[in-house]
Amino acid sequence: MTISLEETINNLTRAARECSRTVARASAHLRTRAINAMAQELRQRIDLVLQANAEDLSQAETNQLSAAMKDRLRLDQVRIENLAIALEDIAAQRDPVGTSARHWTQENGLEVHKVRLPLGVIMMIYESRPNVTLDAAALCLRSGNTVILRGGKEAFQTNQVFGTLIADVLKSHGLPEYAVQLVPTTDRAAVPLLLQASDYIDLVIPRGGESLIRSVVAQSRIPVVQHYQGICHVYIDGEADPVKAKAIAYNAKVQRPGVCNAMETLLIDKAIAEAILPEIVSELEEAGVEMRACLASLQIAPNLRPASEADWDTEFLDLVLAIRVVDGLEGAIAHIDEHGSNHTASIVTENPVRAEQFLMEVDASCVLHNASTRFNDGGELGLGAEMGISTTRIHAYGPMGVDALTTEKFVVRGKGHIRT
Amino acid sequence: MTISLEETINNLTRAARECSRTVARASAHLRTRAINAMAQELRQRIDLVLQANAEDLSQAETNQLSAAMKDRLRLDQVRIENLAIALEDIAAQRDPVGTSARHWTQENGLEVHKVRLPLGVIMMIYESRPNVTLDAAALCLRSGNTVILRGGKEAFQTNQVFGTLIADVLKSHGLPEYAVQLVPTTDRAAVPLLLQASDYIDLVIPRGGESLIRSVVAQSRIPVVQHYQGICHVYIDGEADPVKAKAIAYNAKVQRPGVCNAMETLLIDKAIAEAILPEIVSELEEAGVEMRACLASLQIAPNLRPASEADWDTEFLDLVLAIRVVDGLEGAIAHIDEHGSNHTASIVTENPVRAEQFLMEVDASCVLHNASTRFNDGGELGLGAEMGISTTRIHAYGPMGVDALTTEKFVVRGKGHIRT
Repeated sequence: MTISLEETINNLTRAARECSRTVARASAHLRTRAINAMAQELRQRIDLVLQANAEDLSQAETNQLSAAMKDRLRLDQVRIENLAIALEDIAAQRDPVGTSARHWTQENGLEVHKVRLPLGVIMMIYESRPNVTLDAAALCLRSGNTVILRGGKEAFQTNQVFGTLIADVLKSHGLPEYAVQLVPTTDRAAVPLLLQASDYIDLVIPRGGESLIRSVVAQSRIPVVQHYQGICHVYIDGEADPVKAKAIAYNAKVQRPGVCNAMETLLIDKAIAEAILPEIVSELEEAGVEMRACLASLQIAPNLRPASEADWDTEFLDLVLAIRVVDGLEGAIAHIDEHGSNHTASIVTENPVRAEQFLMEVDASCVLHNASTRFNDGGELGLGAEMGISTTRIHAYGPMGVDALTTEKFVVRGKGHIRT
Repeated sequence: MTISLEETINNLTRAARECSRTVARASAHLRTRAINAMAQELRQRIDLVLQANAEDLSQAETNQLSAAMKDRLRLDQVRIENLAIALEDIAAQRDPVGTSARHWTQENGLEVHKVRLPLGVIMMIYESRPNVTLDAAALCLRSGNTVILRGGKEAFQTNQVFGTLIADVLKSHGLPEYAVQLVPTTDRAAVPLLLQASDYIDLVIPRGGESLIRSVVAQSRIPVVQHYQGICHVYIDGEADPVKAKAIAYNAKVQRPGVCNAMETLLIDKAIAEAILPEIVSELEEAGVEMRACLASLQIAPNLRPASEADWDTEFLDLVLAIRVVDGLEGAIAHIDEHGSNHTASIVTENPVRAEQFLMEVDASCVLHNASTRFNDGGELGLGAEMGISTTRIHAYGPMGVDALTTEKFVVRGKGHIRT
């Protein structure tokens, strides 16, 4: 007897909810051991993983996926060892469940603590990278959450091996096997059904391109962490140290242009543009960066291609950079207000007053002073592995570590207190 | 020329978004002065307020509203003075914008601060109480947010006077008059239009009955703070101090039975039931409480009415109480797991181990030890006035003070740091 897709999804989401309290109440020690065991088992099962991954890659060949997608999909011995190490890092992280960072005592003697607890059931929807499967499972276990994983169909075979591995580890540690579940079908119709299950799922985290995220937001009855574009800015102020400015501009654009925290637009104070732009242009040209410049920049560097209006609003994710000369700090903030995507913005200046104004006024999940935009990353900011990045301000803003997978309840201790 | 409802709502929401950065960047001092001026103006315009309120009350008479609704609607000199004092209390609260409670330094020397900033544009949808209009306006201003207020049609005239008062204060302080806007129509069709405006509104906070909240959640494309039922529990453990137990049970049920943090079900450890239940029953009977008891309770207090299964899941909001004898702490937690509404739960015990287990394991926005459930309230917990209570775990859990109307961004200070 086959069961319908509706039943499959209903069973899956119910099972997640039903075991979520058991997971939330499991000791930190037990959850740590299970995450470490995942790393161990991954090393043990390397042949199975490589075999399944080869099947996914051969299917990718047949389906003529792009070289970039195949690269994201591909696992090898080194990548698998790095995955195991990442799991051990998560196991070594401070467990957030039951911790309290804030407490106070009321005048009447009531002691109030805010204490962290898991969110409950989290669903991740993501594209080709199979490493997300293990990372997300471990981060959810670390934070006492139950998770439903919907990976890309390109990685289906690899993910199946990971799913079995995780279930085996959970069972052998006396944890509920439904604490981590992979959606057992590539049927696209499963997604809208999952997104309606607001009684069973507390938070949806989509990771992927903007169209994936918009489609999830449009369909979901469950709160969604929204990570839209990374239109990241570096502003070189008139009082910038030229050495720092050049290094940061180069690093922010060139070090890894395809990621969301790479710089897309360089803003330069007109007071320093003539002095610094030619050198920046020549360094970036050498790195193969295509530059699209405003009229004022073209007067200084006439060989650049003129920027179109659309360039200010484009996430290039490539060796392409928009450049604009602005009228000081106010001009820079006005440009970011209009064109930024609330992701990352950096100011380069030796003037502390201007730095503070920029840091306080610019509305982005991460604002930096004299540092590359590339530091807006959970690992680099000290959160450990990240579950995603939020570019909207509800629940979390910026990279989400384990704390962002929890909430705080009020724990109140009295001595027989009653209200009068 | 009249404009359509769509245009009205579009203009209103756009205006809110457009001025939200100005409000967010206004100094704490200026916002404090404006909130104090609201209190001043309220005292000045008391006659206008009473006149408008009388019109609303006369309309309420015509529409045969319940006595309870008319009472919620009614303002008098004392209530207005209390409203003014509440505004001054909000003005005196610590301003959250730009504050940082957490910071650390990475090994490479990067300094990371989490810094509070406003959410942006908040919409409140609420029922008859006109005091919410001024409270919400002041709390949003205190937290640097712009707000759209949709009050009940019963209070329309009173709210109009408040709206004009607030706009006058904003203008005279050089703040954008659209920082606080009342929806200028009682047309019900306005609500679904507002709930679709996800580009302009960041968070929706409904205050009212469960049907209001369910309908807002079902229609909204914007994240919604969800405050469902308050099915609050007190558990009297076998090692409870009987004096504290009786006082807390009485206070939690009788002091104000119509509010969400009043006790609805009393759980008693079978080890102490015979010793303590008769006295509790006689005290509650004297206070006019109707008790609905489980079979085990009926053996001890045979005059009580038997409870139905539905009673365990009912928010009575009245002098009605369900009573159940349970098998110790585990039995209490199991009952709350099944029937609680994630609102408030209290344990009365002198056993510290059992107290800690209850506080850590029970999933409610506020858990208490030896204190009445009635303390789950923003004011009583030291948050100042509250904007609402969340019974779901995304963004906020429990009473929401001004901090819950903000988020935190990452502010990073370097010395020319680049990633390698």
